[in-house]
Amino acid sequence: MIGQSGLSFAVVGATGAVGREMLDLLHARGVPRESVSAFASPRSAGLRLPYGVQEIVIEALDTESLADIDIALFSAGSSISKQFARTAAARGTVIIDNSSAFRMDADVPLIVPEINADALAGGAPGRIIAVPNCSTIITLMAVTPIHRLRGVERMVVSTYQAVSGAGAAAIDELRRQAREVLDGLEPTCRVFAQPCAFNVFSHNTPIGADGSNVEESKMVNETRKIWGDESVRIAATCIRVPVFRAHSASINLTLRRPVDDLDEVRHAIAEFPGVAVVDDRAGNRFPTPLEASGRDEVLVGRLRLDTSQMDERGRCRGLSLFASGDQLRKGAALNAVQIADLLVSHAAV
Amino acid sequence: MIGQSGLSFAVVGATGAVGREMLDLLHARGVPRESVSAFASPRSAGLRLPYGVQEIVIEALDTESLADIDIALFSAGSSISKQFARTAAARGTVIIDNSSAFRMDADVPLIVPEINADALAGGAPGRIIAVPNCSTIITLMAVTPIHRLRGVERMVVSTYQAVSGAGAAAIDELRRQAREVLDGLEPTCRVFAQPCAFNVFSHNTPIGADGSNVEESKMVNETRKIWGDESVRIAATCIRVPVFRAHSASINLTLRRPVDDLDEVRHAIAEFPGVAVVDDRAGNRFPTPLEASGRDEVLVGRLRLDTSQMDERGRCRGLSLFASGDQLRKGAALNAVQIADLLVSHAAV
Repeated sequence: MIGQSGLSFAVVGATGAVGREMLDLLHARGVPRESVSAFASPRSAGLRLPYGVQEIVIEALDTESLADIDIALFSAGSSISKQFARTAAARGTVIIDNSSAFRMDADVPLIVPEINADALAGGAPGRIIAVPNCSTIITLMAVTPIHRLRGVERMVVSTYQAVSGAGAAAIDELRRQAREVLDGLEPTCRVFAQPCAFNVFSHNTPIGADGSNVEESKMVNETRKIWGDESVRIAATCIRVPVFRAHSASINLTLRRPVDDLDEVRHAIAEFPGVAVVDDRAGNRFPTPLEASGRDEVLVGRLRLDTSQMDERGRCRGLSLFASGDQLRKGAALNAVQIADLLVSHAAV
Repeated sequence: MIGQSGLSFAVVGATGAVGREMLDLLHARGVPRESVSAFASPRSAGLRLPYGVQEIVIEALDTESLADIDIALFSAGSSISKQFARTAAARGTVIIDNSSAFRMDADVPLIVPEINADALAGGAPGRIIAVPNCSTIITLMAVTPIHRLRGVERMVVSTYQAVSGAGAAAIDELRRQAREVLDGLEPTCRVFAQPCAFNVFSHNTPIGADGSNVEESKMVNETRKIWGDESVRIAATCIRVPVFRAHSASINLTLRRPVDDLDEVRHAIAEFPGVAVVDDRAGNRFPTPLEASGRDEVLVGRLRLDTSQMDERGRCRGLSLFASGDQLRKGAALNAVQIADLLVSHAAV
């Protein structure tokens, strides 16, 4: 356990929604306060954040800040990662980076511990390890057990993404706008270009030449890297919904090998670490973002054989499902801290 | 126009969310107040609803109520339709039924006027015409122009459905729960079994043996009937989101004939009546339920060639899109009133 490792940790971006979760998770793992440093922008320096019943004082990040740090968890956006991570890694700090800065770099492993811990092999101090994008992590936690069972040839994913993916200010925006609408006022937009309260909109990342937004491109590229399978085909549509902190995904799969027994699929998912099956047809109880919020597990349900995909021999090659997972936990902070757990258990720091 | 037809109209279920829209639409078309009767359950009898600047008094529905009515618009649920519609039709009233009671009956046309007005041919007094389910209408308004252009072989649909589909009480529930959550209280559930505010959940209709809920089965069966094509394959996942009154759908198509020119697709959609293209990639502006609310048109955008579906000759057979449409308008009341428009213009009453 990292709590007894004697290592020193830093959280970079500690005042953000993900940074706060990282501090909570380090505390929950028993990492002593004196082994944790918390960094943010200069204007946050001196602020205090809770660390269990204790407090931790925010420091401004500069190029010397990480000199004595063994493991630094970055969640301050791509530009901060690009500015500080390579230098700190060169000096021996292991960087676990939650931004998109290095995810697709060939020398940077992109890790979901339950899925591709093996890609960390050969770990050494002074390296960068990337945390995948939140919607990719949550989708792959649900789909990987099925991929191992039957092979995923193609997936069609439509997401229902919480505003927390855009940070603490977006959570405040949803709250503020909801109150404005209930009070009969026009919602004021500061974080998003359009109202998020009582609305749904296409993900607010730039659109590329093929019409995909960046969130959708991440789903395609990161899945291929995490699975080590360049052949998997993905059609993703990423949509924001007025939910505070858990992402959901409606997923339709085309399988390489036929499937006829849903119980076998359900069993494979239930056996997979970090996933819980919520699939009560009689009670109409399935994964919801509210139930997934604050939980470590990704919830998976609405499992159905998709008979719109029968092969030429009359066997079913399709499967539909729905998943919800906490964006701030497994979609970001928890996955990062689990990478630290792995490094410590591999004695790779 | 039905306003100058001299015909008598009834709205059955006038106090409901759809019933009120029906009254608004009849008024907007210039139907005089004295030509409109409004019916609801006995406990609503005597209530007054606005009809333009005038008022209309609700009457309790009984078996004699529709004796002098030429066209009755039913939106009071399946059981009321089953109880009253066949008898009234046998006596000569045309029933335009918004419930699911008769949709799949062989002798009942299932009509979206922009799509299959021809299925009304041979219209006569004393018949029942069904309005499709809201999510089916909105999805097919977006997809039919593409179906005509390239042929839809299969579609994967994930919906983002407003609470208005569950009626006026559900709209109140979303409002009440949102305020409770903002005030730090537990949301109280009366209409839905689980919180709808700041949450997303699988559609609250019963689940059949194949794992589909009723909303999803309607999408499959009604699409085949409206298109007159039993071969179209559909995988639907119907999900409720905390939105007041417009449904959205993320749609992925497999086309019978290859597509390479998105402008051609965009043009076909723009030319289709009742649909508006909202597809501004540079401005990141696409259909939203908020923008669709109160509008007659179904909004269509996020048009993308889906390169995860290339055929053996390297041609693209896939297309992705996103649509939003007002559930109470085109998804219900407007479609019903448009059927009345059609009947009058065909002199079929």
